Amino acid sequence: MKGTVIHAPWDVRYEDREDPRIEEPTDAIIRTVATCVCGSDLWTYRGLNPIEKPIPMGHEYVGIVEEVGPDVRHVKPGQFVIGAFFATDGTCPICQAGYPSSCVNRRSIPGAQAPYVRIPWADGTLVPTPGMPDRALIPSLLTLSDVMGTGWFAADAAEVRPGKTAVIVGDGAVGLCAVIAAKQMGASRIIVMSRHEKRQALAKEFGATDIVEERGEEGVKRILDMTDGLGAESVLECVGTNESMMQAIQCTRPGGHMSFVGVPHGVSLDGRLLFYKQIHLHGGPAPVRRYLPDLIQLVWEGKIQPGKVFDLELPLEQVAEGYRAMHERRAIKALLWPDA
Amino acid sequence: MKGTVIHAPWDVRYEDREDPRIEEPTDAIIRTVATCVCGSDLWTYRGLNPIEKPIPMGHEYVGIVEEVGPDVRHVKPGQFVIGAFFATDGTCPICQAGYPSSCVNRRSIPGAQAPYVRIPWADGTLVPTPGMPDRALIPSLLTLSDVMGTGWFAADAAEVRPGKTAVIVGDGAVGLCAVIAAKQMGASRIIVMSRHEKRQALAKEFGATDIVEERGEEGVKRILDMTDGLGAESVLECVGTNESMMQAIQCTRPGGHMSFVGVPHGVSLDGRLLFYKQIHLHGGPAPVRRYLPDLIQLVWEGKIQPGKVFDLELPLEQVAEGYRAMHERRAIKALLWPDA
Repeated sequence: MKGTVIHAPWDVRYEDREDPRIEEPTDAIIRTVATCVCGSDLWTYRGLNPIEKPIPMGHEYVGIVEEVGPDVRHVKPGQFVIGAFFATDGTCPICQAGYPSSCVNRRSIPGAQAPYVRIPWADGTLVPTPGMPDRALIPSLLTLSDVMGTGWFAADAAEVRPGKTAVIVGDGAVGLCAVIAAKQMGASRIIVMSRHEKRQALAKEFGATDIVEERGEEGVKRILDMTDGLGAESVLECVGTNESMMQAIQCTRPGGHMSFVGVPHGVSLDGRLLFYKQIHLHGGPAPVRRYLPDLIQLVWEGKIQPGKVFDLELPLEQVAEGYRAMHERRAIKALLWPDA
Repeated sequence: MKGTVIHAPWDVRYEDREDPRIEEPTDAIIRTVATCVCGSDLWTYRGLNPIEKPIPMGHEYVGIVEEVGPDVRHVKPGQFVIGAFFATDGTCPICQAGYPSSCVNRRSIPGAQAPYVRIPWADGTLVPTPGMPDRALIPSLLTLSDVMGTGWFAADAAEVRPGKTAVIVGDGAVGLCAVIAAKQMGASRIIVMSRHEKRQALAKEFGATDIVEERGEEGVKRILDMTDGLGAESVLECVGTNESMMQAIQCTRPGGHMSFVGVPHGVSLDGRLLFYKQIHLHGGPAPVRRYLPDLIQLVWEGKIQPGKVFDLELPLEQVAEGYRAMHERRAIKALLWPDA
């Protein structure tokens, strides 16, 4: 088959790769129905993560099970499945406690921007949908593999509660999905920090009540002005830079909750600031596997439509254009169809 | 009256001060029955906090209400009361949410190492005991003003749960009180990191099941060995140095909870470490006022005896010796009797 491989910064190729095959008895092989480009793929694309040898890319996927290894019990060929962006065993104490993304046997997904992909720990990683989905549902189901699950974790970790205020720092696909999550969890005021017109519009469609365009100290001042000088009960940091983390901490009221779900780059937190702000802090790679059953149901019933974050759809073979469009911020998120 | 004033590092004097008087209608004047020296007082004593002019010292106290301002409703002359180490209004949204130590109208206690002390926000700050306590109960009641409340917050913020493991980093008065709290909250395994024989013994008396003497990487390795390589569900950081914070973070399992209640000195946390450890982090100045009613009850019924952390008792006029003894680690904590 062909698949997506990055050779060097800016050099993404759709080229011949070996067909994936069952390597361990707990593996499954999936025929990819849809995949996409992640904001975190751009760190590699931009040369901020090392590329020592060509890397098969992609960790977001939905598809149909082609084949399973002899130890796979719950996933069956022919099922339509969604999996998390890490493969996890589902049975270790950390998985059992609800943190599969820190599973002691965690594995990377070996290149899902391809027509077929091998999924390790199939039973722990994959969740079947209630039936074969309409094509119209597929973009929303695909977001559950990463960005919608990550936005949900951001809201869950920040303990968004009915009638309270949630501030979302970041207007990428994760930040926009976090708006959906905050709305579902009943926040009465959802403030999104964004200065990008098209993303502001989508944030409002998803449930944002207010947009703040200011950043840094001015952004913090705006949030404090809007919250009686106290800050918000819940602040969701969906970027990962030091500036956005500082902004989020300063926008959280004492006793409030701040989550951070963007992989931190250059972030250093002063202990005394955290102490005197007296906030709760929780973040990390989202345990999206924990949320998959409930989120599949919400998408299946049409209650949420996170697939709207895809504003570019391409045949998989044009994957390099997907990376370019996202890097240049022409697209929020690019969906790739293997069968187009 | 006389009272305790620090003039410069190492220069603590018991000297003439003005008698405190009602300055605001929400004030109360307390006749101090017992007070003590705090670990945080030692930062000033050692010259690590600036001393621009002579500072009246002390923020831990129990005593009898002498006089109240015209707006004080719930506290009455003649009552035996305990107050938190910050004065707080009790009515702002932050107090109401359970975080009085971050009250928007928070005030310092103006020098409680004295026979009389003015307490701002008397109604929000002071809690009367059920009656006049026996002298034997007074040391334990005094700890509720700070160290026992802070230890309780450490356990609460680290979400210590029945049947789980709690690790306590630090064997000062707060760390030892945190052992009492973890025991009360039902932890089945309470591991204290300490290399001080006398403190180890008290920790065991309070409920510690294990002592770890190693520190840094070796200490972390010991804790991981004791927890199936995963780390503990709850880790309570009761020191405030960068080394102890790193040790605590590394000892917490993914999805677990770490609290920090020692004022951080030179602490800087790497964002990526916090992200990939995927722990919950919560700390700050303990909201001891929130816990006072329940903790008074536990002491009153003899269920906890945190007063055992006082291993030195002195007449108040010998306060300077209390500072010296704690600085030299000859004493865990020094109690001062104004009437001795």
